[in-house]
Amino acid sequence: MKYYPGPGRRTDLKRLNSLIEDVFLEHGKDVVSMPPKVYINLPKGDFRTMPAYIPSMDIAGVKIVNVHPENHKFKLPTVMALTVILDTDTGAPLAILNATYLTDLRTAAAGAVAAKHLSAKKNIRLGLIGAGNQAKAAVMAISKELVIEEISVWSRNERHAEILCSNYSDFDCRSVSAQKACDCDVLVTATPSRTPIVKREWIHEGTHINAIGADAPGKEELDPDILKISRVFVDDITQAVHSGEINVPISKGLYDADMISGTLGEVVLGKKKRNDADEITVFDSTGLAIQDLAAAKAVMESDDYIELKFP
Amino acid sequence: MKYYPGPGRRTDLKRLNSLIEDVFLEHGKDVVSMPPKVYINLPKGDFRTMPAYIPSMDIAGVKIVNVHPENHKFKLPTVMALTVILDTDTGAPLAILNATYLTDLRTAAAGAVAAKHLSAKKNIRLGLIGAGNQAKAAVMAISKELVIEEISVWSRNERHAEILCSNYSDFDCRSVSAQKACDCDVLVTATPSRTPIVKREWIHEGTHINAIGADAPGKEELDPDILKISRVFVDDITQAVHSGEINVPISKGLYDADMISGTLGEVVLGKKKRNDADEITVFDSTGLAIQDLAAAKAVMESDDYIELKFP
Repeated sequence: MKYYPGPGRRTDLKRLNSLIEDVFLEHGKDVVSMPPKVYINLPKGDFRTMPAYIPSMDIAGVKIVNVHPENHKFKLPTVMALTVILDTDTGAPLAILNATYLTDLRTAAAGAVAAKHLSAKKNIRLGLIGAGNQAKAAVMAISKELVIEEISVWSRNERHAEILCSNYSDFDCRSVSAQKACDCDVLVTATPSRTPIVKREWIHEGTHINAIGADAPGKEELDPDILKISRVFVDDITQAVHSGEINVPISKGLYDADMISGTLGEVVLGKKKRNDADEITVFDSTGLAIQDLAAAKAVMESDDYIELKFP
Repeated sequence: MKYYPGPGRRTDLKRLNSLIEDVFLEHGKDVVSMPPKVYINLPKGDFRTMPAYIPSMDIAGVKIVNVHPENHKFKLPTVMALTVILDTDTGAPLAILNATYLTDLRTAAAGAVAAKHLSAKKNIRLGLIGAGNQAKAAVMAISKELVIEEISVWSRNERHAEILCSNYSDFDCRSVSAQKACDCDVLVTATPSRTPIVKREWIHEGTHINAIGADAPGKEELDPDILKISRVFVDDITQAVHSGEINVPISKGLYDADMISGTLGEVVLGKKKRNDADEITVFDSTGLAIQDLAAAKAVMESDDYIELKFP
């Protein structure tokens, strides 16, 4: 059994996007085993258990991931994760991966796949709401699929937006107001917000939005009116209704699951698409266990592991 | 983060029984978080993901365990398991345990707790149906709670019964017919059978039965008539209905969940009990995630680990 202590830093992001596209294709064909995430509440956060099996890719496993918003007090990340990969023939544990950084990468890769298929343009102005790890990962992942001509970043803490830009000096990147960040072709929202940040009137025709931040009941980043006038695609309908961007509007009766246009899998499969250049499209990302398996597959090709005794 | 490569061999079984009794007490009080096991089918078996949190014992984690009946062809155990323990304050992974042998121990410990509370006698003749790892573990665990005066073992393969007895030379142990093994005070059934082995007429008044083998839909070891005339206690009602000894009789309309007398937690709590010395009692064990946390707690006191880099 192998332990990968810090995988992800050297991952080929273009290849990861491609593997993520593959798993969404399988998801669109409805040939993956992926029960809903199981949430357990702890005193200061929660942890989620995410098992899955993808027969065509011969990979099975479980990600275990926590969300503890106060972890900065302990100098620990809010989100930490382990993925356990099992041999599909024997059920034996093959590998354990530190999946903390991989979780950012695989989330960003799904957003990149969504932007590739749903953005109205190939050369884009990228807007970012939030300047955390997920926003940074989104820049790198999307840059493998589309040509980013400029980046406008809003963060509650302007300094964080400036730091993000300084990390991406290859791009024309600046810290702006939230409204200005929304004046773009592809918008990524990646905050832990529980009240909408992005207003309906800030979003112009033809924008594609990756709504990344909402991944638990009670979280939302977009004015629900945006959802009503957009074609909304989700990663997984059950999960999105439970914990995605649409969860709060649904619970308030402002949105209905019947209004969802389809899944990213159906988009990748070619069954669903943006209808014209003026539509607003939204990808509501909650994060799927099959993405974690794709990410594990990408890093298990590396030799950055130690051997552990088992059984 | 610590990795325990082979825990369990030096575990104090009396202490483990006591910890297992504690977690059933918490379960009886309904103060543990334990969603149902999640099953994923693989081509030649399945794997189960079992998360749980016990607030009073300050422990949370997930066991991942497979069942692959053909694994002997690969010289691997049928059942292999890993347990991941998380810090309840921060959600950070604290430990990963090879839980293969621990799974046997924690199952046997629950049976020992059931026998302690439900056996009509303290000095017992022990009957075993099956002579595998689970039967062996049952002998050791029960011996910490009751005085075993003799052991009668039946195995489909008589040689296996003889080997078991040779391992326990401290006890008056012999290989016998299935009927003869059932002429006892405490009977443990621990086979992977999918048809009843134990006949109604073999079980005399006052016997306590630990029905251990049935842990998945389709498995059963006891004539359903035994369940009808017994007081049946389960580890967890949802799990037992889904995959315990009662699952096949329920699916055939021969038994009803309303006929269950209670849970082991309620027995430990003193709310339910054997009513008189002549009753037949059955403990239907499916194996709970909280038992895996108790077992992890027992071995995490040892220093048989290596340190792994995380995060």
